[in-house]
Amino acid sequence: MTIYPVIMCGGSGTRLWPVSTSRTPKQFVNMVSGESLFRQTVRRLAQADDGLSLADPVIISNARYLDLIEEQLAETGITPLAILLEPCARNTAVVAAIAAEFVKGVDPEGLILLLPADHFIGMPDAFRKAVGAAVETAKSGHIVTFGISPDRPETGYGYIKAGEPIGTSAYSVASFREKPDQATAMTYLSDGKHSWNAGIFLFPVGLIQAELRAYAPDILEGAKAAWKASSTRETIVYLDEALFSAIRSMSFDYAVMEKTQKGAVVGPISCAWSDVGTWPAWGGLQTGELASGPILIDTKNCTVHADDDTLVAALGVEDLVIAVHDGAVLVMQKSRAQDVSLVIEALKARGRSDLF
Amino acid sequence: MTIYPVIMCGGSGTRLWPVSTSRTPKQFVNMVSGESLFRQTVRRLAQADDGLSLADPVIISNARYLDLIEEQLAETGITPLAILLEPCARNTAVVAAIAAEFVKGVDPEGLILLLPADHFIGMPDAFRKAVGAAVETAKSGHIVTFGISPDRPETGYGYIKAGEPIGTSAYSVASFREKPDQATAMTYLSDGKHSWNAGIFLFPVGLIQAELRAYAPDILEGAKAAWKASSTRETIVYLDEALFSAIRSMSFDYAVMEKTQKGAVVGPISCAWSDVGTWPAWGGLQTGELASGPILIDTKNCTVHADDDTLVAALGVEDLVIAVHDGAVLVMQKSRAQDVSLVIEALKARGRSDLF
Repeated sequence: MTIYPVIMCGGSGTRLWPVSTSRTPKQFVNMVSGESLFRQTVRRLAQADDGLSLADPVIISNARYLDLIEEQLAETGITPLAILLEPCARNTAVVAAIAAEFVKGVDPEGLILLLPADHFIGMPDAFRKAVGAAVETAKSGHIVTFGISPDRPETGYGYIKAGEPIGTSAYSVASFREKPDQATAMTYLSDGKHSWNAGIFLFPVGLIQAELRAYAPDILEGAKAAWKASSTRETIVYLDEALFSAIRSMSFDYAVMEKTQKGAVVGPISCAWSDVGTWPAWGGLQTGELASGPILIDTKNCTVHADDDTLVAALGVEDLVIAVHDGAVLVMQKSRAQDVSLVIEALKARGRSDLF
Repeated sequence: MTIYPVIMCGGSGTRLWPVSTSRTPKQFVNMVSGESLFRQTVRRLAQADDGLSLADPVIISNARYLDLIEEQLAETGITPLAILLEPCARNTAVVAAIAAEFVKGVDPEGLILLLPADHFIGMPDAFRKAVGAAVETAKSGHIVTFGISPDRPETGYGYIKAGEPIGTSAYSVASFREKPDQATAMTYLSDGKHSWNAGIFLFPVGLIQAELRAYAPDILEGAKAAWKASSTRETIVYLDEALFSAIRSMSFDYAVMEKTQKGAVVGPISCAWSDVGTWPAWGGLQTGELASGPILIDTKNCTVHADDDTLVAALGVEDLVIAVHDGAVLVMQKSRAQDVSLVIEALKARGRSDLF
């Protein structure tokens, strides 16, 4: 049974501004380990001799990123099975539905591995092993989500609570919990039952269509209509603009996972995962100090990123993010890392769309 | 009796890095009011109809800044009487001695107005009036220093204490005091007798030579020898490298002013003076917020400077200096404004002389 990796790379957040912009979102930037997260994700899912039966990747993204996608795919040397292009962002429920339409046409018995392109996984082998461990559970009629072993009481993530065992390597999903408070996150960390929801899913094509029909039929029908009206050029599929735009925007977690009885969780997995969601999260992935790095004098607990042609010097400061990219400098208290969107709003008000 | 303005512009400090560098020190940079402090100083001393009998300016600087000087003088439209070039920095005592050698050859009865090019004076007319008020005192055989009316208990400056009156507009110098502590500075601020030492002096040529002979004869003799061996091209004088380099490096304040019995002080003068000595001092001169300025969100008491092609956004920070120029970014706690030299040392250690 073949696994079809469907890599979602259409998002563009604000929290890693100024490096991540709507023109070049973080998944396409060389921010970690000298290679873009998109390329790392594509390579992580490449065919290999480890028993995983993987198809070539399916890329799903916003049409505006086609050039970036083709350029970066070429750098990996991996040929995509297809590139599915959305005319606008409608969150992840419809992405699952579109992925199902595509894979159904290729292999109705196939499994879909749906995952974001903008996460870092430091131990790709451990991740692939977890995918392998999830195959039987998915085949037996489950939507498997992958739980990441928490290493700190993070309040910015969603958590999955494991229920009863399913077979030897999975559990039913007892509950989902979005962004708990600090005290709750502490108990999650110690009880061994909770893991981070990484937004990575493995499921059979037929099952996901059934569950969408049950819990979000309008999204399923909208996806089918947009798919039917799409235009195709070689392996690139352009989803119909009017029909796709009309679809309700909702996350897959909210539309399906929090309602289905077919959920399962594999994990907790230890694979050095990070969503690289904020500057401090990015900072947590940096190791060592480079000779070409910033000059830090009497400086504590700061996260510094700059383009290679810029030198940052910090003197006597604490708990700051300093990020420099292409004509923009962000200096921010670390505790405000979730609020970068306020800067983007100010830039909008000034008409500086060249900067975000 | 003619006043010969001698403008010292050979210095290159580190405290306004990265904008001020040894290649282009702060006096040559457009940092305040859109015009370099050097040009402002030259224009402040231009001939006018206000009764001050001023000669064209004499510029004294390091030879490496000749191009900058000629370019910026051309922009003012003012022709220098001479440009005297030092091969290296030997502080201000020798500068006074060299100025005396030059002016003696032009006008042995002349007065020298010795002043730095890197200060800002917001009320040039008030300053010129103070110079006019000092002429009689200088002619009567005094080295007049100009005391600036303090408007805060600044601990980073030198103070002059006024003694007995000399004529109608000057006082004897009771004492000098370098960088007092906060409590002392508070008493200076309130007692009405203390003013800031701006390092601006008016004196007769003959007197300064006599005082140098009395208190720093080696510097006087060194200056005479270097002057005699100098080479001249039109109005540009190159001081002899070997002879000038051999001269002792000492400030004019320390070599002469703290020892002479001929000192006098005019003031305190209110002329919106600033030495623009640190980033916070620079920040104190900025008025209003420009549409093209930084984006400051939940930000208090920060000083931000960036080149026109760079946008700075600050979020949730306090008491910082953020300065961006030409491939370098400085983020510093304001209280560390005197310590920028630590950054320069780190740059030296990395061999990054391109950046300072």
